[in-house]
Amino acid sequence: MSPVVTAAVMVIGNEILSGRTQDANVAYLGRRLNDCGVRLLEVRVLPDLESAIVPALREMKARYDYVFTTGGIGPTHDDITVDCVAKAFERPVVEHPEARRLLEDYYGERINPARLRMARAPEGASLVENPVSRAPGLRIENVYVLAGVPKIMQAQFEAAAPELSGGTPLQSFTLPVALAESVVAPGLEALQGRYPDVEMGSYPYQRDGRYGTALVLRSADPGRLEAAAGELRDLVAELGGVVEQEVA
Amino acid sequence: MSPVVTAAVMVIGNEILSGRTQDANVAYLGRRLNDCGVRLLEVRVLPDLESAIVPALREMKARYDYVFTTGGIGPTHDDITVDCVAKAFERPVVEHPEARRLLEDYYGERINPARLRMARAPEGASLVENPVSRAPGLRIENVYVLAGVPKIMQAQFEAAAPELSGGTPLQSFTLPVALAESVVAPGLEALQGRYPDVEMGSYPYQRDGRYGTALVLRSADPGRLEAAAGELRDLVAELGGVVEQEVA
Repeated sequence: MSPVVTAAVMVIGNEILSGRTQDANVAYLGRRLNDCGVRLLEVRVLPDLESAIVPALREMKARYDYVFTTGGIGPTHDDITVDCVAKAFERPVVEHPEARRLLEDYYGERINPARLRMARAPEGASLVENPVSRAPGLRIENVYVLAGVPKIMQAQFEAAAPELSGGTPLQSFTLPVALAESVVAPGLEALQGRYPDVEMGSYPYQRDGRYGTALVLRSADPGRLEAAAGELRDLVAELGGVVEQEVA
Repeated sequence: MSPVVTAAVMVIGNEILSGRTQDANVAYLGRRLNDCGVRLLEVRVLPDLESAIVPALREMKARYDYVFTTGGIGPTHDDITVDCVAKAFERPVVEHPEARRLLEDYYGERINPARLRMARAPEGASLVENPVSRAPGLRIENVYVLAGVPKIMQAQFEAAAPELSGGTPLQSFTLPVALAESVVAPGLEALQGRYPDVEMGSYPYQRDGRYGTALVLRSADPGRLEAAAGELRDLVAELGGVVEQEVA
């Protein structure tokens, strides 16, 4: 693995593309992956369509250290993620005996063929625990197959997180200032030139009818981050900018 | 153009991938594009990195009828979308005289070099009006370059919407029922078999501690949608399912 450990997320579901459902998984995964020292570098949202999912997954699993899929692993005919992942790995789909046992234990007499669909897995997959509703996530090589429902996706991710081999997490420093973005721009660009290893972004916001800018620095090196943050504070003071409270 | 008019969205910004900012533009664009008869078939979220943006944009503009980018068109050094779009089209970046005039009119004496960065455009681009804060969006062939701030992105999209050549919008029918997904699954799959031209999805939800399933049908043909909806109601009645209120 490269010194920077990378990941991509594939969000599978017509309901996200149609705007019916607001995705909530990307922001969660972005934050938590960084905590684990893994940088989320790409997200693709794709429809429930094998011809879209399979080639994209092949490309992404070759390009990134980890790929996480969300959605499409429920009991209905439009849940095709397992079949697509199997196809991308050129493996058959089999019934995973341990997954079947988990589902039978959980549903008891309410088990039915649709629910047993959730025991299907690409051959050789290992299970990712789901403490919320039992139907497990899956891991096949560097691909994690997770649910779409945020509460379940989060539980599955947390079950998988300890086994991720991450690098150094990026640390961030945020300075919200009562200055227009364009006023900070030249100084920020000069600062970026002196700190090519510190990622610098500026994000305009509006509060009580006034404009402000959140200046964000990110680096895996705490010393460099602190040094850049010090220079950023000096720059803002020089420009007469007032530092504001950060809003979550 | 094919009878189904297609689109993709490229969300540009480290802040979405780091989880700092929750994207709100994809859901809006998905809904509004469908209103315009354009189907959103892919979204990619990419970092502020030329090496990521340029090849992806080349691929997407060739594959889809329209591509919309959001983000990265502000006044700071991390706003690189215009340069990347120009590179993807192999055109130089020039100052757009009309964009400059708009910015000078709007900012008056507060104009500065950083703000004038927002007048830069790939050669031959046309402007997309921004009634909120003037800095325009851009159109280059089938690519629309829009802001990342939702209020501005939405205003720019609405300015561009009348010129989109769409097909027939998909209409949808939603039936929220107090049934587990797995109970509806076999009947829904059979129904899908009889209506291959109607997209059918099922989305579990929790309300007051009970589970329910939103059954969603989508089709460009109102007659087929109505016929499938009738059969779906019969199926739910047969299963003893109670139809619930739809929650927005």
